[in-house]
Amino acid sequence: MILDTDTATDDALAVLLAVTSPKLKVEALTITCGNVGFEQQTKNALYTLQVAGKKGQIPVYQGSARPLVREVHGSATYVHGSDGMSDSFFPDPQQKPEKEHAVDAIIRLVGMYPNEVTIVAIGPLTNIALALLREPSIAKKIKGLYFMGGFYKFYGNINPGATYNAWVDPEAARVVFQSGIPITTVGFDVSVKSSVFTDEDYVRVEKLGTHYADFFMKINRIRRKYCKEHQKMNGSNHPDAITIAAVIDPTIVTQSVSRFVDVETRGELTLGALAIDELGVWGKSPNATICVEADELKFKKMVFDTLKMS
Amino acid sequence: MILDTDTATDDALAVLLAVTSPKLKVEALTITCGNVGFEQQTKNALYTLQVAGKKGQIPVYQGSARPLVREVHGSATYVHGSDGMSDSFFPDPQQKPEKEHAVDAIIRLVGMYPNEVTIVAIGPLTNIALALLREPSIAKKIKGLYFMGGFYKFYGNINPGATYNAWVDPEAARVVFQSGIPITTVGFDVSVKSSVFTDEDYVRVEKLGTHYADFFMKINRIRRKYCKEHQKMNGSNHPDAITIAAVIDPTIVTQSVSRFVDVETRGELTLGALAIDELGVWGKSPNATICVEADELKFKKMVFDTLKMS
Amino acid sequence: MILDTDTATDDALAVLLAVTSPKLKVEALTITCGNVGFEQQTKNALYTLQVAGKKGQIPVYQGSARPLVREVHGSATYVHGSDGMSDSFFPDPQQKPEKEHAVDAIIRLVGMYPNEVTIVAIGPLTNIALALLREPSIAKKIKGLYFMGGFYKFYGNINPGATYNAWVDPEAARVVFQSGIPITTVGFDVSVKSSVFTDEDYVRVEKLGTHYADFFMKINRIRRKYCKEHQKMNGSNHPDAITIAAVIDPTIVTQSVSRFVDVETRGELTLGALAIDELGVWGKSPNATICVEADELKFKKMVFDTLKMS
Amino acid sequence: MILDTDTATDDALAVLLAVTSPKLKVEALTITCGNVGFEQQTKNALYTLQVAGKKGQIPVYQGSARPLVREVHGSATYVHGSDGMSDSFFPDPQQKPEKEHAVDAIIRLVGMYPNEVTIVAIGPLTNIALALLREPSIAKKIKGLYFMGGFYKFYGNINPGATYNAWVDPEAARVVFQSGIPITTVGFDVSVKSSVFTDEDYVRVEKLGTHYADFFMKINRIRRKYCKEHQKMNGSNHPDAITIAAVIDPTIVTQSVSRFVDVETRGELTLGALAIDELGVWGKSPNATICVEADELKFKKMVFDTLKMS
Repeated sequence: MILDTDTATDDALAVLLAVTSPKLKVEALTITCGNVGFEQQTKNALYTLQVAGKKGQIPVYQGSARPLVREVHGSATYVHGSDGMSDSFFPDPQQKPEKEHAVDAIIRLVGMYPNEVTIVAIGPLTNIALALLREPSIAKKIKGLYFMGGFYKFYGNINPGATYNAWVDPEAARVVFQSGIPITTVGFDVSVKSSVFTDEDYVRVEKLGTHYADFFMKINRIRRKYCKEHQKMNGSNHPDAITIAAVIDPTIVTQSVSRFVDVETRGELTLGALAIDELGVWGKSPNATICVEADELKFKKMVFDTLKMS
Repeated sequence: MILDTDTATDDALAVLLAVTSPKLKVEALTITCGNVGFEQQTKNALYTLQVAGKKGQIPVYQGSARPLVREVHGSATYVHGSDGMSDSFFPDPQQKPEKEHAVDAIIRLVGMYPNEVTIVAIGPLTNIALALLREPSIAKKIKGLYFMGGFYKFYGNINPGATYNAWVDPEAARVVFQSGIPITTVGFDVSVKSSVFTDEDYVRVEKLGTHYADFFMKINRIRRKYCKEHQKMNGSNHPDAITIAAVIDPTIVTQSVSRFVDVETRGELTLGALAIDELGVWGKSPNATICVEADELKFKKMVFDTLKMS
Repeated sequence: MILDTDTATDDALAVLLAVTSPKLKVEALTITCGNVGFEQQTKNALYTLQVAGKKGQIPVYQGSARPLVREVHGSATYVHGSDGMSDSFFPDPQQKPEKEHAVDAIIRLVGMYPNEVTIVAIGPLTNIALALLREPSIAKKIKGLYFMGGFYKFYGNINPGATYNAWVDPEAARVVFQSGIPITTVGFDVSVKSSVFTDEDYVRVEKLGTHYADFFMKINRIRRKYCKEHQKMNGSNHPDAITIAAVIDPTIVTQSVSRFVDVETRGELTLGALAIDELGVWGKSPNATICVEADELKFKKMVFDTLKMS
Repeated sequence: MILDTDTATDDALAVLLAVTSPKLKVEALTITCGNVGFEQQTKNALYTLQVAGKKGQIPVYQGSARPLVREVHGSATYVHGSDGMSDSFFPDPQQKPEKEHAVDAIIRLVGMYPNEVTIVAIGPLTNIALALLREPSIAKKIKGLYFMGGFYKFYGNINPGATYNAWVDPEAARVVFQSGIPITTVGFDVSVKSSVFTDEDYVRVEKLGTHYADFFMKINRIRRKYCKEHQKMNGSNHPDAITIAAVIDPTIVTQSVSRFVDVETRGELTLGALAIDELGVWGKSPNATICVEADELKFKKMVFDTLKMS
């Protein structure tokens, strides 16, 4: 598995779940543009590996620091803190990023393990798109791609039609959705419905007293506040974490639909929308499986089981 | 009440429900561009009045035969038949349309009855937009506007994001949604869920043996076939009829939400989408009430009660 | 002739030229949205008539205070002054605007004088578009339309592709250019090349000592400064005036081309561009004559001759 | 110098001029998507090298067979013939393309020779954009980029605002124009004004009786016919050849202007337009030098001198 991430708060939890899971073999973390500064995100990924006790065991590759065509989006530090880790200001990680470019690494790994590599993309799809443009033949060799983005029930968090990851680089998203790679999406709606950690959950996490629990408490401090104050949630949602959870344990997804999905790259109000052809008006075969419902209890159990580990 | 309609099949049923209801006072039918030829739609409206025994009692005004900016949409005769009445080829109606333009009639009637007139728009919003552009002061004098269009659960029937009426003239829809008129929408999703007449329903209608039932059977012949064969429904849906039903009896709407809604006028894949700001990312007050669920039994009872009348 | 204007500085000069010319019969001034506040523009038109000694002789009709679809453009008071007359703050005019709406007046006048009325539009095309939408049959009865806008040689003053009048309401411009009315455009490039009043010209105007000359000096005070400081001209250009001059004396246009022209309504960088199909790639017959060169001396002589009159 | 080309007819002449010129050192030909099939274009480039007696001396790298975001444009075989060489159906070239990807080769060469490499792009800018996205640091190390595209005087050959190369991949063009590389454009207008080979010119070429002259006659057979019949020229224009000629001898450009230029990626009528900010309304420093006029005689002399060579 390759995990492509713009590492900040919830991405870090996702990284932790992924690299500590006995069910996944993470070949690489690849860093994409997104939430906060590019170098900071790289550090966050490396630091999270260190926390997970995987220092030096999983290579981290830096990819594109900007979207395909559009300018870099102003940072989402209001959600993630100025360091993308809720202002935890962790020390510099000991592991360094690899010299190989993420795009080259993706092409190389897929070529080495044809039909075996699953890519999990929890940030904008810039790196994946660049890899596809540079080496189109990988499309048929990628086993599948999980993407955290979009929604099935109206839940745009940037504009009414779009969520952050697809909106930051809609052109990249379009390239990926049109590539033929089998795609599974876990949307913002699902995360709001089934991944919210409430105050009670936080109390339970704190009581665990483990290193991981401490890490969780720190990195979600600002995120938790933001979700409650600005998005009317009853706690913090964890879209990236529940995406990786669905990879670790597919039964976490309790309902899904297969549809043809394309990406709006020109809309004024709906830029970055994943256009789900519910009625089949375009007459095209489905290219994506959209998660509709998830098992909240199972997800939380997985997170708690992980946080208990150290 | 003013009923603005591109009269064809389901519009005709809506007209029948509206003009025979003791609860509504229909001041005017106004004809807008849309489903089939403009003159044919006018005839369909006039003929339906005649069937309803209202000949000469309700004036019919012709409005704009084309959208604000875009070209006239190629006809939807595949749904409605070449005459818009499932190829019933009814005789010419005896009543003639008024000489006054629909836009002038709307402005005049709203001016005459400030805060009393409800407009029910079951076609593209061209006439309403033109009236607002010609006389902006009417926005504050219209009691409310019901619009058949959009969806709350993905159900685009033209592209994944849009339904016919908003897609034909998205610029007009935008003018109307931004006008400040209190808007209620009844979407295609609701019509598919709660207004489908199944084969059994058709058998029941046929058995009624009334004039209205006969009219219903005739005008829905092609529509019924189309819905079953091309839209995977279990019969024919009746979006216009259920919209007017919701005006006659508001308790037919069993769930609704208030949201800020704007209209996508530039999207490539989502042109004409009603962009519903579920999370309030734009920070604007709701301008529309969106019907989420309706009472199917109540709706059908209303239709049957009407069809029994003659 | 009907003169449609968002009256401010240069429009006022155009009005003066038009109503004092023995060669034109101005039936109406119609006010459109544009340069400065709508009521102020109306006053400016009425006051200019008063200066021209035409008080009560030419009716002024108010049209649409906003573009078809877009929001009202923030005022261009930086060019025209806060009152649209270079901060002259003239007294209120004695003549009042008519009660009839400009759109109705245009439809009525064209209907009264089929094939005789020329419309000269020196502001955004909103009123003309609304008249065409309300009564499409007038397209074939309008003798011709002169439009101040666009360019033949790159000269966008709002974005690289567009000039103010088409950019404020591109949808209206599109409706007009697609209507079939024979159109002549006088562009911003021509005005910059052949209508600039230099310091020497202003000295000559001042020496005239007439009422009109005094009016000219006052209304161009801010405009003149703006053109020199922000648009690198050697004085003030007069696009509206040279447009009306081309109507009064067609020989002022010394070169023109006939092309098919459509209006860009969606571009990000070129919104409002008059797209001139130079090579005929669309294979459509020309719908517009584009002025390429004008006779500067003849234009200035006409202005001076007018300013001398009073 | 690196020559990036979608080799067909006029590209082939450009390649011939480039590789036989003693003033240029061509390090690589890189193949981009465009005129005809990608493999065919590669063959055309290789075959042209063979004709030029450069077989095995200049490596040819294949780049992206598709634009960044959009689908591959249907071929322009109507201009270039089904083989892109006016149906000459030349034998397969002996030299084979390199295994290295064009994007990697560009990055490598620019890195090896910082501030020394000029890129001449006579096709869509996909490869250059991908190189910039993959390795942004090269922007500051590229000496300059010549691009055949756009116009200064209206001359859109795909739509009124755009010419082929920018229109095929407007997103790539935008990335390149925003990159900071010093750009020089030679537009379609200049090629039509100053690079047309008339019937008389063709007679002169034929009389040369050289191998190169024979090659020229063959590859331009269909192009010549197309230009005369469909683009109303007095012969065949040679935009790619005059672009390379301007690199070989900069005095061929007799007039040029420096402007800020961006690329329209969303327009409906002007997609792919190079938006030249003539008046500086965006307040940005020039990023491009636009060729306005060229020396036709000097260009033709260069071509004849080359054709005489073998």
